[in-house]
Amino acid sequence: MSEPWRVGPWQVRSTRIAYENAWITLSHHEVTHPNGAPGIYGVVGFRNRAVGVLPIRDDGLIPLVGQHRFPLDRFSWELPEGGGPLDEAPLAAARRELSEETGYTAHHWHELMAFDVSNSVTDETAVGFLAWGLKPGRAAPEDSEELKVNYVDFPQLLSMCLDGTIRDSLTLVMTLTAGQRAQRGELPPAVSRLIEAG
Amino acid sequence: MSEPWRVGPWQVRSTRIAYENAWITLSHHEVTHPNGAPGIYGVVGFRNRAVGVLPIRDDGLIPLVGQHRFPLDRFSWELPEGGGPLDEAPLAAARRELSEETGYTAHHWHELMAFDVSNSVTDETAVGFLAWGLKPGRAAPEDSEELKVNYVDFPQLLSMCLDGTIRDSLTLVMTLTAGQRAQRGELPPAVSRLIEAG
Repeated sequence: MSEPWRVGPWQVRSTRIAYENAWITLSHHEVTHPNGAPGIYGVVGFRNRAVGVLPIRDDGLIPLVGQHRFPLDRFSWELPEGGGPLDEAPLAAARRELSEETGYTAHHWHELMAFDVSNSVTDETAVGFLAWGLKPGRAAPEDSEELKVNYVDFPQLLSMCLDGTIRDSLTLVMTLTAGQRAQRGELPPAVSRLIEAG
Repeated sequence: MSEPWRVGPWQVRSTRIAYENAWITLSHHEVTHPNGAPGIYGVVGFRNRAVGVLPIRDDGLIPLVGQHRFPLDRFSWELPEGGGPLDEAPLAAARRELSEETGYTAHHWHELMAFDVSNSVTDETAVGFLAWGLKPGRAAPEDSEELKVNYVDFPQLLSMCLDGTIRDSLTLVMTLTAGQRAQRGELPPAVSRLIEAG
């Protein structure tokens, strides 16, 4: 038995790994709450960081990727996304996912934002990028992926985020952040023009 | 042994529950990928729907709730949020969480959006509301919560979302959606005025 340790206001009395696969580790913790009551926490630890890309071609079109999401058993249109090991630079993972899912490589990259995806139960974090100066190439999706691709301009993408057509958190945060930052003049002018031209 | 069944393009060969607590169920599935290769999926099923509230007082101030998030071992400022059973109306859960965490009750409610929180591994969904016509009361946080409250106006909230001070996905999506919808004239005028006055 190790000594109890602290996580914020909680005292952790014991920890065990309840499940593990290549993507997640589920840790079960016995804790003492701030008020002294006993409790438990089941925490899903992610081995990968989520990365997303908002890629805009010179003609203003944005490739959306459509796929069936297994956990929800539902089809979902999203910006190109994937994961990279926590010790990999997020930009390297983003370049790889963009190329694998759509074939595009990008000359210009700009980090949009980073956030915590689902902080009540998981430690998953996400980073989103804008990419422009796109060059087409051959997509190479993973064995486990069956992807469709469709093109929209930024106003259409924003509308899909606001009308509930797009429900994926990373796509929503990237799109809404890009729109807001473009309005504020906080993005490189070349990509602002592509976003605002639509 | 039951027959294999389909989830989108996957064939599911077997399923077992690897972990369960009051909030989540971890199901381990053996699957056949679209290309015929064998694989697995570990899916975190949520018993609760996440609900969030963007509450605005008549003076334009918005209560933010600060708490240490156990899974990330990090302090986080967020809009009032919580969870409600999947068979409970999201609005009922939102009313309860607002009142528990801040003491406020609201005369007016408006559903902002719904989304999928982390769709690569979980089936968690979230619903966000605007609330105005606020009346103060006594907060009653759960035993497991140690909360701080702070007040900001909408422009400050938006800035905190854009500068990385706020990292919580539900807070980001609610705030950015509210800002965008207010600009488009898609919100009830009374709350639009509170958002835009700031």
